[in-house]
Amino acid sequence: MTDEVFHDVAYKAKDRNDLVSGIDEFLDQVTVLPPGEWDPSIRIEPPKNVPSQEKRKTPGVPNGTAALGEPEEHGGHSGPELERTGKFFGGLVMDVKRKAPFFWSDFRDSFSLQCLASFLFLYCACMSPVITFGGLLGEATEGRISAIESLFGASMTGIAFSLFGGQPLTILGSTGPVLVFEKILFKFCKEYGLSYLSLRASIGLWTAFMCIVLVATDASSLVCYITRFTEEAFAALICIIFIYEALEKLFQLGEKHPINMNNNLELLTQYSCSCIEPSKPSNGTLTYWEKHNITASEISWSNLTVSACHHFKGEFVGRACGHEGPYVPDVLFWSIILFFATVTMSSTLKQFKTSRYFPTKVRSIISDFAVFLTIMVMVAIDYCLGIPSPKLQVPSDFKPTRDDRGWFVNPLGPNPWWTVLAAVIPSLLCTILIFMDQQITAVIINRKEHKLKKGCGYHLDLLMVGIMLGVCSVMGLPWFVAATVLSITHVNSLKLESECSAPGEQPKFLGIREQRVTGLMIFVLMGSSVFMTRVLQFIPMPVLYGVFLYMGASSLKGIQFFDRILLFWMPAKHQPDFIYLRHVPLRKVHLFTILQLTCLVLLWVIKASRAAIVFPMMVLALVFVRKLMDFFFTKRELSWLDDLMPESKKKKLEDAEKEEEQSMLVLEDEGTVQLPMEGNCREDPSVINISDEMAKTSVWKTLLLTSENTKTKESSSKRF
Amino acid sequence: MTDEVFHDVAYKAKDRNDLVSGIDEFLDQVTVLPPGEWDPSIRIEPPKNVPSQEKRKTPGVPNGTAALGEPEEHGGHSGPELERTGKFFGGLVMDVKRKAPFFWSDFRDSFSLQCLASFLFLYCACMSPVITFGGLLGEATEGRISAIESLFGASMTGIAFSLFGGQPLTILGSTGPVLVFEKILFKFCKEYGLSYLSLRASIGLWTAFMCIVLVATDASSLVCYITRFTEEAFAALICIIFIYEALEKLFQLGEKHPINMNNNLELLTQYSCSCIEPSKPSNGTLTYWEKHNITASEISWSNLTVSACHHFKGEFVGRACGHEGPYVPDVLFWSIILFFATVTMSSTLKQFKTSRYFPTKVRSIISDFAVFLTIMVMVAIDYCLGIPSPKLQVPSDFKPTRDDRGWFVNPLGPNPWWTVLAAVIPSLLCTILIFMDQQITAVIINRKEHKLKKGCGYHLDLLMVGIMLGVCSVMGLPWFVAATVLSITHVNSLKLESECSAPGEQPKFLGIREQRVTGLMIFVLMGSSVFMTRVLQFIPMPVLYGVFLYMGASSLKGIQFFDRILLFWMPAKHQPDFIYLRHVPLRKVHLFTILQLTCLVLLWVIKASRAAIVFPMMVLALVFVRKLMDFFFTKRELSWLDDLMPESKKKKLEDAEKEEEQSMLVLEDEGTVQLPMEGNCREDPSVINISDEMAKTSVWKTLLLTSENTKTKESSSKRF
Repeated sequence: MTDEVFHDVAYKAKDRNDLVSGIDEFLDQVTVLPPGEWDPSIRIEPPKNVPSQEKRKTPGVPNGTAALGEPEEHGGHSGPELERTGKFFGGLVMDVKRKAPFFWSDFRDSFSLQCLASFLFLYCACMSPVITFGGLLGEATEGRISAIESLFGASMTGIAFSLFGGQPLTILGSTGPVLVFEKILFKFCKEYGLSYLSLRASIGLWTAFMCIVLVATDASSLVCYITRFTEEAFAALICIIFIYEALEKLFQLGEKHPINMNNNLELLTQYSCSCIEPSKPSNGTLTYWEKHNITASEISWSNLTVSACHHFKGEFVGRACGHEGPYVPDVLFWSIILFFATVTMSSTLKQFKTSRYFPTKVRSIISDFAVFLTIMVMVAIDYCLGIPSPKLQVPSDFKPTRDDRGWFVNPLGPNPWWTVLAAVIPSLLCTILIFMDQQITAVIINRKEHKLKKGCGYHLDLLMVGIMLGVCSVMGLPWFVAATVLSITHVNSLKLESECSAPGEQPKFLGIREQRVTGLMIFVLMGSSVFMTRVLQFIPMPVLYGVFLYMGASSLKGIQFFDRILLFWMPAKHQPDFIYLRHVPLRKVHLFTILQLTCLVLLWVIKASRAAIVFPMMVLALVFVRKLMDFFFTKRELSWLDDLMPESKKKKLEDAEKEEEQSMLVLEDEGTVQLPMEGNCREDPSVINISDEMAKTSVWKTLLLTSENTKTKESSSKRF
Repeated sequence: MTDEVFHDVAYKAKDRNDLVSGIDEFLDQVTVLPPGEWDPSIRIEPPKNVPSQEKRKTPGVPNGTAALGEPEEHGGHSGPELERTGKFFGGLVMDVKRKAPFFWSDFRDSFSLQCLASFLFLYCACMSPVITFGGLLGEATEGRISAIESLFGASMTGIAFSLFGGQPLTILGSTGPVLVFEKILFKFCKEYGLSYLSLRASIGLWTAFMCIVLVATDASSLVCYITRFTEEAFAALICIIFIYEALEKLFQLGEKHPINMNNNLELLTQYSCSCIEPSKPSNGTLTYWEKHNITASEISWSNLTVSACHHFKGEFVGRACGHEGPYVPDVLFWSIILFFATVTMSSTLKQFKTSRYFPTKVRSIISDFAVFLTIMVMVAIDYCLGIPSPKLQVPSDFKPTRDDRGWFVNPLGPNPWWTVLAAVIPSLLCTILIFMDQQITAVIINRKEHKLKKGCGYHLDLLMVGIMLGVCSVMGLPWFVAATVLSITHVNSLKLESECSAPGEQPKFLGIREQRVTGLMIFVLMGSSVFMTRVLQFIPMPVLYGVFLYMGASSLKGIQFFDRILLFWMPAKHQPDFIYLRHVPLRKVHLFTILQLTCLVLLWVIKASRAAIVFPMMVLALVFVRKLMDFFFTKRELSWLDDLMPESKKKKLEDAEKEEEQSMLVLEDEGTVQLPMEGNCREDPSVINISDEMAKTSVWKTLLLTSENTKTKESSSKRF
């Protein structure tokens, strides 16, 4: 209570003398107790900060993500890394010069338990998409490029990138647009009777060449046009795709393992699903039998297994049969349990760092190993229970999926010679795709709020991606670019935080453990996974889907765009103290969010539609949408909500002057005083004379009077 | 920053003058800015409270449970309700006089959405234990007292108690010890060929009589010997039993619905489990067939349902067969999903009150209806999915389970006349059982921290329980006493909290919505449940088990004992600022917890063993254990960790004096000053003269010197 009075005094006071007199009033409300009544345990409590009642105040810097909107960060990605050198390969040379001195420390800095945790976690997290993507590609290309090619390619590209890339924290992986591109290409080749792998090799080589041209011309410096608006819309989209796919795959399990929803528990004795000879085989079935030399009468139908029955086009008959085979008991629900248990356990263990229990060291180890521990526990439980849940399938032989191809693809091959030249046209599209996918992720990873100390290298990144893309094309392997969610997860798992993490208190974010070893190890182990098939086949897929959901959701958390979406549901008085909320009217914030959300929805629609291939162009379009926003928002508002576009820099000084005037006006209206937090103002003589000015105002006179009153009061209260 | 400096000044200062001089120092660090540099958005921030770094300070009063350890509460339950009147039925008369004026308001105060939410939630929560307990009793007594009797009895007793009881917030229910007593009694009757229902009626009538004697002699005033130690050990036990039973029932589902853990998904075409004639019927089976006139050859075995096959002692054959019948697909895992989904959803919705989203009104409605909403959603999902999960079974006819009994039981019946008199011996045990069960729960409900305004009535409570126990005995219905967890849940669901619940901020606890209508409605609806069988049979049992777990866990949260157990795993610097941790050394707190934990474990062992009937006596023994603690702990420590026992009141004054001396010593060591929070000390002249005393100490002289130093400093800093 007394404290609040003091605060009031401090607010109203206009200078030192006034403060003294105000404190006199304050003292009248304070009593000194006789020693007998003292309680050493009671201290003055600071006033409770009720968010809804007090003015918005400067927040602490929570966990690396809050520095987002701070004015010092305006101007976006404008470090020396992105300055145009004007020289041929000038940017690349600068990148190498910048990164080379850190090369040795990139290995030395990795001796930490956290790196081990990060590598184990991300290895598990990367395996599943690489294999799944490989599988999908295999289906799309009739086995020309499949799981083993995907594993091999990812491992090779990843190792090269981790060793020599400009930002080794980036994790390369397969992305949706690339898959779409490959599908369309395969369809085209089939229609026109061209060799898919050869045409693909030509396109890949062209793309690699163009990437190198982009590197040579310092094209990566255009990255500065990618503002927070574009980054976050893109990142949010990728996170949502991750979450969506995790849930979709869980649903697909329901299709693969249908359950009988109308079991009558009393009639379980009558339940069965046997394979029988089709009573009235369709024409299709008859043709199929002929084609495969199957004589229906020679088959002992009742002894067939499920897949054999499918193979011979038998019919399933019985109460325990679904549409396309027997109902699978328990598997679906067990998968759901595994899925949600994984999500819950990994996020709980991750948050354990800020719990009250156990010493800091124990908590931080548990938190670092959260996902790996969860996977281990889930694998153990699943193994003990024995339910045949779907498991991770890793190829066990190191050889191309199809026998008609080797590890080298001739770019010409059986195709006519002009295809090699014509390949330049699709490769243009492919280059945009690779460039956008790669650089947006790189921008997100290299954000200033990550406090990276070893610098980045956009040109070097692109060079490595380009070279490896060429190599993969010639070897008939899939293409890999920076994978947004995996990269963000990688960075998050390497966060350095202040040691004294008291419970509840947000540990202070110190930086990222920048090194090349985690990335390297992930891809080395991925390459040798072929030899670990026996171990990896114990990992249930629902657990990996759960890890996906966890990764998607936790990446989403750090996105300011997501915070702003949540504001829609918050009454104004409960809104957190985001810095931009202080400086930009709420409806403008909402307008900005709605525009961004519209872009996100459009991107989603395009990605899901048949026009998915233009997706990278639409990401490019985001940059122009952002440019249009200059008409709806003032520079000042945009500087709080987003980074500023580079052109506006010239106008910045002018704007700054204007705004100073404005804020002066605002200040005089509100009539409050700023008491600076640091006591270093003595060195600045300009702060002192203000009391002369203040003495002239009427408020001041009133306070002087009060001050005199209290002085007389004080003399009468000398009994103290 | 400046604020912390001020706090330091306030700490070190010994009186008014010193404070003024200290503030001068403080001002030297404060600068007044010229208006141009003012930022209206910045205000002085109170120092961040880092628990590990600052001294323990008086906590706010969170949510009703924190007032626990406050010194004003010492002396336990010493209100006027428990004073011995010395008159025949004097306590009861006082109870009636106290409660009668509130009778009308007990109905008027119930017009609130919260009451509707509370009643719907608790109706669902009460139904399952009443029916389950009835079913268990039915098994134990061969159907003499079963589910329908339990429903009828609970409804009748509940209505009477809610209308006329001393504390209508108490919810009556079935308790474990009563079930054990009934089981033992039934076994005894069977062995000696006595009529169970008649003997039970005699015992019940005697018990009712003794309860009335206890009321007449104001025996409930002995309740003041039940301290927090006893209460919490008992309440913790009941909560743990609740949680344990919820999980146990879930496990039992696994036995009832066995799953095949080694399904081979390829061989599902071969899976079935049919009923066949036993190839080699055992002698037992043959006798059974003879006894029931079953001719094995006449039965069409393969068409039998599961229960028919069990009935005819058929054999189950096939890959889909477990030990005692076919494996039940999906049901177990679906039940597990329902169970945990219920727990998660109800606790999430309950906590929604303090979230940032939506207006306060919406949040409080969602929070109030949390459990009811959860049950509704789960029922809907379960219904849509159609998995045959086990459902709540409610009797559909209102008539005694067995046809050989009516709604009236003759206390003599076929038994010899002396049994009526001999019944007085078991009834003594029964009385202790009823008294302890009833009063400990009543004590917990009537705690001061609940801020009840309408008073309580221990004598009236016991009278109602006694009378209804007599009525139930004569009608052949089970006995009901206060059910701890249900009562705590009832009180919690009726909490009144301050409206302006900002996010994160703990809403201020204002009291309980004290009224009779929720209790009344719960039991009225329970009575009419017989007519709602068609609706109630949609409620899956796992959902109700989930509600049990939620109730047990949320009741456990408010128990100080549980907080103290958690302290074992917390490093000292992370421990929350419990008031007793400030005044009692940590190892003493741990010793107290360990002793209490030992008692809890002993109680658990006794409850689980065959000696369960002595359980209430062991609860009684807790009072004596607590008495022994006076030898290990000082009165002061006990006053912080527990309530004080009544006898020590005489010594209190003496103790208080001693402790004052002690705290003086402590104070001088620490050299801190208490600044009282309220500015009302002027009216008390005794607080003033202390400065004379203080001037003599050496600390004081040093401070005076410092004060003079700062005065000279002040004059030199007049440029301000």
